[in-house]
Amino acid sequence: MAIVTPARMRKAEGLPVKKRFVDDLNEGEMIQDVFLVKQSLLKTSRSGNYYLDMTLSDRSGSVNAKFWDASRQLYESFSPDDIILVRANVETYQGKMQLIVSHLKEVKEEDIELADFLPASEHDPKEMLAEFTRLLGKVKGPALAKLLDAIFGDKEFMAAFARCPAAVSMHHAYIGGLLEHTIGVARMAVGVLENYPQLDRDLLITGALLHDVGKVEEIEHRRAFRYSDRGSLLGHLVIGAGIVRDKASQIKAFPEDVLMQVEHLILSHHGQYEFGSPKLPMTAEAMALHYLDNLDAKMQAFREAQPADGNWTDKQWMFDGRRLYIPRSREEAE
Amino acid sequence: MAIVTPARMRKAEGLPVKKRFVDDLNEGEMIQDVFLVKQSLLKTSRSGNYYLDMTLSDRSGSVNAKFWDASRQLYESFSPDDIILVRANVETYQGKMQLIVSHLKEVKEEDIELADFLPASEHDPKEMLAEFTRLLGKVKGPALAKLLDAIFGDKEFMAAFARCPAAVSMHHAYIGGLLEHTIGVARMAVGVLENYPQLDRDLLITGALLHDVGKVEEIEHRRAFRYSDRGSLLGHLVIGAGIVRDKASQIKAFPEDVLMQVEHLILSHHGQYEFGSPKLPMTAEAMALHYLDNLDAKMQAFREAQPADGNWTDKQWMFDGRRLYIPRSREEAE
Amino acid sequence: MAIVTPARMRKAEGLPVKKRFVDDLNEGEMIQDVFLVKQSLLKTSRSGNYYLDMTLSDRSGSVNAKFWDASRQLYESFSPDDIILVRANVETYQGKMQLIVSHLKEVKEEDIELADFLPASEHDPKEMLAEFTRLLGKVKGPALAKLLDAIFGDKEFMAAFARCPAAVSMHHAYIGGLLEHTIGVARMAVGVLENYPQLDRDLLITGALLHDVGKVEEIEHRRAFRYSDRGSLLGHLVIGAGIVRDKASQIKAFPEDVLMQVEHLILSHHGQYEFGSPKLPMTAEAMALHYLDNLDAKMQAFREAQPADGNWTDKQWMFDGRRLYIPRSREEAE
Amino acid sequence: MAIVTPARMRKAEGLPVKKRFVDDLNEGEMIQDVFLVKQSLLKTSRSGNYYLDMTLSDRSGSVNAKFWDASRQLYESFSPDDIILVRANVETYQGKMQLIVSHLKEVKEEDIELADFLPASEHDPKEMLAEFTRLLGKVKGPALAKLLDAIFGDKEFMAAFARCPAAVSMHHAYIGGLLEHTIGVARMAVGVLENYPQLDRDLLITGALLHDVGKVEEIEHRRAFRYSDRGSLLGHLVIGAGIVRDKASQIKAFPEDVLMQVEHLILSHHGQYEFGSPKLPMTAEAMALHYLDNLDAKMQAFREAQPADGNWTDKQWMFDGRRLYIPRSREEAE
Amino acid sequence: MAIVTPARMRKAEGLPVKKRFVDDLNEGEMIQDVFLVKQSLLKTSRSGNYYLDMTLSDRSGSVNAKFWDASRQLYESFSPDDIILVRANVETYQGKMQLIVSHLKEVKEEDIELADFLPASEHDPKEMLAEFTRLLGKVKGPALAKLLDAIFGDKEFMAAFARCPAAVSMHHAYIGGLLEHTIGVARMAVGVLENYPQLDRDLLITGALLHDVGKVEEIEHRRAFRYSDRGSLLGHLVIGAGIVRDKASQIKAFPEDVLMQVEHLILSHHGQYEFGSPKLPMTAEAMALHYLDNLDAKMQAFREAQPADGNWTDKQWMFDGRRLYIPRSREEAE
Amino acid sequence: MAIVTPARMRKAEGLPVKKRFVDDLNEGEMIQDVFLVKQSLLKTSRSGNYYLDMTLSDRSGSVNAKFWDASRQLYESFSPDDIILVRANVETYQGKMQLIVSHLKEVKEEDIELADFLPASEHDPKEMLAEFTRLLGKVKGPALAKLLDAIFGDKEFMAAFARCPAAVSMHHAYIGGLLEHTIGVARMAVGVLENYPQLDRDLLITGALLHDVGKVEEIEHRRAFRYSDRGSLLGHLVIGAGIVRDKASQIKAFPEDVLMQVEHLILSHHGQYEFGSPKLPMTAEAMALHYLDNLDAKMQAFREAQPADGNWTDKQWMFDGRRLYIPRSREEAE
Repeated sequence: MAIVTPARMRKAEGLPVKKRFVDDLNEGEMIQDVFLVKQSLLKTSRSGNYYLDMTLSDRSGSVNAKFWDASRQLYESFSPDDIILVRANVETYQGKMQLIVSHLKEVKEEDIELADFLPASEHDPKEMLAEFTRLLGKVKGPALAKLLDAIFGDKEFMAAFARCPAAVSMHHAYIGGLLEHTIGVARMAVGVLENYPQLDRDLLITGALLHDVGKVEEIEHRRAFRYSDRGSLLGHLVIGAGIVRDKASQIKAFPEDVLMQVEHLILSHHGQYEFGSPKLPMTAEAMALHYLDNLDAKMQAFREAQPADGNWTDKQWMFDGRRLYIPRSREEAE
Repeated sequence: MAIVTPARMRKAEGLPVKKRFVDDLNEGEMIQDVFLVKQSLLKTSRSGNYYLDMTLSDRSGSVNAKFWDASRQLYESFSPDDIILVRANVETYQGKMQLIVSHLKEVKEEDIELADFLPASEHDPKEMLAEFTRLLGKVKGPALAKLLDAIFGDKEFMAAFARCPAAVSMHHAYIGGLLEHTIGVARMAVGVLENYPQLDRDLLITGALLHDVGKVEEIEHRRAFRYSDRGSLLGHLVIGAGIVRDKASQIKAFPEDVLMQVEHLILSHHGQYEFGSPKLPMTAEAMALHYLDNLDAKMQAFREAQPADGNWTDKQWMFDGRRLYIPRSREEAE
Repeated sequence: MAIVTPARMRKAEGLPVKKRFVDDLNEGEMIQDVFLVKQSLLKTSRSGNYYLDMTLSDRSGSVNAKFWDASRQLYESFSPDDIILVRANVETYQGKMQLIVSHLKEVKEEDIELADFLPASEHDPKEMLAEFTRLLGKVKGPALAKLLDAIFGDKEFMAAFARCPAAVSMHHAYIGGLLEHTIGVARMAVGVLENYPQLDRDLLITGALLHDVGKVEEIEHRRAFRYSDRGSLLGHLVIGAGIVRDKASQIKAFPEDVLMQVEHLILSHHGQYEFGSPKLPMTAEAMALHYLDNLDAKMQAFREAQPADGNWTDKQWMFDGRRLYIPRSREEAE
Repeated sequence: MAIVTPARMRKAEGLPVKKRFVDDLNEGEMIQDVFLVKQSLLKTSRSGNYYLDMTLSDRSGSVNAKFWDASRQLYESFSPDDIILVRANVETYQGKMQLIVSHLKEVKEEDIELADFLPASEHDPKEMLAEFTRLLGKVKGPALAKLLDAIFGDKEFMAAFARCPAAVSMHHAYIGGLLEHTIGVARMAVGVLENYPQLDRDLLITGALLHDVGKVEEIEHRRAFRYSDRGSLLGHLVIGAGIVRDKASQIKAFPEDVLMQVEHLILSHHGQYEFGSPKLPMTAEAMALHYLDNLDAKMQAFREAQPADGNWTDKQWMFDGRRLYIPRSREEAE
Repeated sequence: MAIVTPARMRKAEGLPVKKRFVDDLNEGEMIQDVFLVKQSLLKTSRSGNYYLDMTLSDRSGSVNAKFWDASRQLYESFSPDDIILVRANVETYQGKMQLIVSHLKEVKEEDIELADFLPASEHDPKEMLAEFTRLLGKVKGPALAKLLDAIFGDKEFMAAFARCPAAVSMHHAYIGGLLEHTIGVARMAVGVLENYPQLDRDLLITGALLHDVGKVEEIEHRRAFRYSDRGSLLGHLVIGAGIVRDKASQIKAFPEDVLMQVEHLILSHHGQYEFGSPKLPMTAEAMALHYLDNLDAKMQAFREAQPADGNWTDKQWMFDGRRLYIPRSREEAE
Repeated sequence: MAIVTPARMRKAEGLPVKKRFVDDLNEGEMIQDVFLVKQSLLKTSRSGNYYLDMTLSDRSGSVNAKFWDASRQLYESFSPDDIILVRANVETYQGKMQLIVSHLKEVKEEDIELADFLPASEHDPKEMLAEFTRLLGKVKGPALAKLLDAIFGDKEFMAAFARCPAAVSMHHAYIGGLLEHTIGVARMAVGVLENYPQLDRDLLITGALLHDVGKVEEIEHRRAFRYSDRGSLLGHLVIGAGIVRDKASQIKAFPEDVLMQVEHLILSHHGQYEFGSPKLPMTAEAMALHYLDNLDAKMQAFREAQPADGNWTDKQWMFDGRRLYIPRSREEAE
């Protein structure tokens, strides 16, 4: 899959172009551009005047911003998660960039490109969709093929699936991350099947394609990535198995024992109780899926990890708090 | 609830009466009665003849039985889980009762009383049903009342629910055990609500009544208690939440956030990941339900435990392998 | 139990009334009132002058306070945990209230109402004592009744017990919290006994009333809640069992096996080794007490938890770091 | 300390001498001697006659014994834990020794030497007492010296202490084992003090001498080693700390903070919650005691372990189920 | 890889052919063939005569054997792990096959085919070696290629490696199992590299090929599979890393940081401390190797598992004691 | 061992004397002295000028330092871990000491005494070496004596060993700490041997002397203590066992089983998998070494711990986060 720059993506869809991003602001310049409001506080200065203390962000990062001599009215004219257009000077304060804003106003969602404000996959969405379709085609048995079609053939669902991140933080936490991760797992599943002919081919590929569908309901990803209430209380494993069961119940004579195995694949794929699997893998396909899911997630986490001190990253929560070794020589070579 | 003897139950339903049970056989007597076959093996004696080595059982226990000079034909005329009528002498061998069978033949299910062959609750089924109905009436809000009616108003489901054991082994592992346990938890829930007015009354009682409904599909209980394939692969928490979601989807405008909380109550009530809860209790009602469920199960386990050595029981799996202290004085006083 | 405001409590006892509390200070006003000193530091300003940087508190919260142009002498005139009378302007600094103190002096303990400085139960102490006495009366057997009387009949001990918090932080961490929690557990014990007639009534209620008596020695609660050295090194379980044994040894012919069971109830009620129980519950009463204690503590923790982000609280240490779901709708309805 | 044979011990005390022990019976011989009854069952042989199937034991081991053509009367004439005199032939059955008993009768306790029937320390009791007294003398401070005298100066207690095993099974599970283990720990404590002068000498030695005193009440050791009810429900840590507190309360002006530290030493010496310590070591002396106790117990466990397969023992419960390596060469050299 | 029958293997090497194997003995026949002695006991019958009670085995299983009227001399003429030639009748006793031996004598190792007595891989050794050689060729960098050659180019070592089982029990516990498992892991490593181009290709393949080389010293596999003393005390991870370091030290200017990473790959590949990895995977290659190793081992364990009850296997130690679901339909289809 | 002041050490070696240390700076004074640069940042002040914000340190602690009106050139003239000579005023800012630097320049390593910049053992290095030599002499058997000589007789290695800290943080984290800790463990080993004559004397002492040799390669300790890449990826247990194996391979006919046991002693001495031991102690000597190592480390940690609040330290990571009790009375008495 070719890697595309966001610029290329925006042009392709004919939307207005955000010119400056947080990670390439320069001290001293004057800018006028759109940002997502992460936080906005009304404070009183020593001199007794109000000012706004804000955190503004886009897909490249976030920056502190001050609006001196603000009013309560201005403060109440927008909220966190809104998009605002600002005119500002870029300054340095205590070693960090800061925007001193002179004008600001809210902007409507239809006038901006949401993708500018959330991190996105480096892969071309169309290529990812094509690859995903190719993998769907690997499932030959009629029952499972119908099931996949019932789920991914639903356009609204598929659009949400293709946009959803694979996580709120951790690995693949960006627009398109879920699709990218699902492709990664399914591709390896196809490869592994050559080594273990005793595995049920259709079942394993189906499991790989469906294992994380519950994330579409678990993670809200409009202007920020956060867990939905339902996601927090039920989890994507149970939600995902429910989606599968609902769709299967609408397919005539869907074999009960196959459905049961697909549900088991989804429920058990975390492989450990403390990661939310109510049942541990008990079939060969479930066991394989668990390892492949984990392998893809961890490989991506390594890709995203940055050395912080010599050849070592900071402590990684996803690796039980240990530091990872990323030889600098190799980094430079890439 | 009054405690009824199985004899009283049988008469009430007009079924043939099994006369002798395993736990009151006497050495030297001759019997003719029906038993459930647990195991049957064809073996060769030292003299080179075939004989049957069987384990026969009823709700009171099990006993070894021998049929000397058997044939392969006789051996193949019945299977484990069948009911057979035997004529036999009761003897003692190595300190234990043993049946020396001279005649045997299979009996049809319609000619016997299944309750004679599986342990059953000591409580009168009708009184338990009345109590359960009374508790259903405690839920006043229309949405949850409709949900309960949709589930327990289904006669076939309710019949299975009323007959189901609460476990394959451990506590309440007998016919009617699930109903008895559900009543126990729901009664305490009603009582606890007086102390914590901040709890959502309807939600907690609904959770208590529904928390184990998935066991109806998880446990097979026709002639023996064992887990169904589906029960083993998905577990009663996920199955139960699925039953609730299916039924709620058929109720017009069932509030989504209430459904979500009921599902959470069911999924989280085991309270620990390693006991199969994919999410831990995050609402006050879920937390309370977890403790009440546990308390009722443990109190029943104490009732069922027998001192094996002085005042102490054997090691109890359900209590992490520790022995329980049951003062003999108290036992005798009861 | 009716809920009383601290104001009503103070008047009932004829003590001076603190007028302003930390949680209802307004920017711009001038106050003169008493506060507890949590911390006091002598610092040097940029201009080279000394100033005091203090944290002042009362039962409603704490606030930063500055005394400009202070002297070492003033600094040494009082210590943390002292009560001081201050005259101050209320200002806002970096979005938070701050006191700019112009006058301050220490106040003697007899001139203030200590309850103004530590959080206290919302329940009327007298009603709680009446309820506690009613529960003591439920224990009918002479030996256990004598034991309870020997402990709670001691006026000095009972006064400390009634005042003690149930914890240094976490749940019921306020004056009267231990009494409130003990009542909560004992009331449920009485209720549960109806469902499990096999339990020893007197033993369970006695266990409920005594389970936390060791906290009287474990927690210091004069002007702050903190663990005593003895509490940290021995724990309230062992201290509590020791109190019981000492008192029982003074009762003629107190039955040894009953004493042993009461000690076991106290020692095992945390139910898990890692929470400091040297023995896990091995009697039915001990098992029940463990669940009821836990249930009451958790229900109170839910009451004290505040949603921090939508319907969710911050991470709760007492719930293994998970967030709790507290539907806003319900909050508002209360 | 010199190692004494039990024979030497018996003569020293003028008691009748048991001639033959289980571990040196020879096939084919006829014996007449006393044994402890571990188990006795009345069974029916194939020919329909009663016989006794018994396990007889002495300090060297246990052996199966048969009494053919027994009567119910004979069976009821003695019980497990009784001592009987038997006349018997020694035979081999299925590769193991077996006694074919022709006569048997109960023997009174005063006519035998109890030490013949329970395993005992290899060390001379008098030498152990002398060493223990020497170690008591190492504690110089008057308060702790008085405390030790109050406990070990009680003759009845000291006699029980000197006889008690250190465990029911595992390490030092023999008469005198507790004394031997206590000496082992205290001697090392004295040695360690040379390396860490910052430790409180008196406190550590006192802790070493007292750490297991609760075992005197925890373990019954008359004719078999088993836990008392009190021992099972409270544990020797809490019992031991209670003994210390009781005795200290009878010493005038015993310093409260010293008592608290001695109690902490006893309560925390298991060093882990799951081994029954309600508090973990928080003082340097408690930490040191924990390691020394563990070290002595494990060294003794190694001494008692036998290679079962080449250089390896069977799985050892006390070492989390791992096998220990005991080079045969070294075994033979000893 | 084609699957070869042992018969084909034997012929290929020109060794004498064992005719009858334990798993196809028939009741009533007379046999004369060679077996491995697992156990031999000298016992006395009721009539007072000696007899031998033996367990004889070959690669297909084991069987009990009796030699009536034996002598001590005969008993001492051979030992466990010897091979004996027996003439015997095949009988059934208590439902199991049994050999009644009339003649027996020891056989020299050079006269038999050892492969007849231990289970072996179903794959053709030559094809496995060819595949292994092909995989060695995938490593292109000179340093790692030299390292692999230094290890696997040693003919004696390679012969032992090719013969070694991958485990004493569990998965791949047969002759050739280590080679088969190593190939399985390395083949997947090659496949996975296509999905994660950021991985160091040579390093991952080298790690896959070397990860278990320590097993050659850890497991003795001449006539039975058992851990060597060195294997038990050090483990194959440390032994394997040591082999690599020794060989690398003989290669001129072997890059220190590459060696360090190969050692880390071997030491960390168990992925969890409790499985003996002193360090957890900290490089992307080590993380990937850990999953691939686990995946291959688990897939093979599924292949070896047999359903014991319906669609379910017995409890599997390797899967934390859970039962596996192996749909019968699929079994039959294969 | 006598305790020496660093001053005494410096004079003994004839190096320039650092006059002022961080822990005895006084407000208001002017100093000129050398410091180690921990951190150096170039920042912009409100007025738009550059300044340096630095952390300077020596063996007694660290202090913030400002250089106003700096240039990028000055900033780039030195790096963290360099030594600089500064002229500065000592001021107080927000209650803490601060240096206002007017001149600074880098200093070469040969012109300073490195020991001034890293914390060092309080013990005289020469006395420690003498004691270490005495302990080496305790090993009598020729093979182990040769092994020790091969390792510690290497002058370069011995110099590094004598200088190395025993940890990066935690206990003995100072120059000479490894030698001090090794002596502590070995001295106790000698003492313990008197109590357990069954232990192999030479083996245990050798294990004590060698158990941490791998730290010489694991910890870098030139100007700061940090883990080497090799140390992080392999750990000092595996590195240490490797050092021993390498040296033993150069000794003619070094007995294989003795080497195996020494390696096991080193690999298992952490005693728990999660602390990086790939094998747990399986020999009596390994078990003893584990406890002695732990005991010495914990005793030193107590020595280094400071009471932070009354008699209590802050939470100690090395003691699973619990606070330690250090009675003030005793502190003062020392």
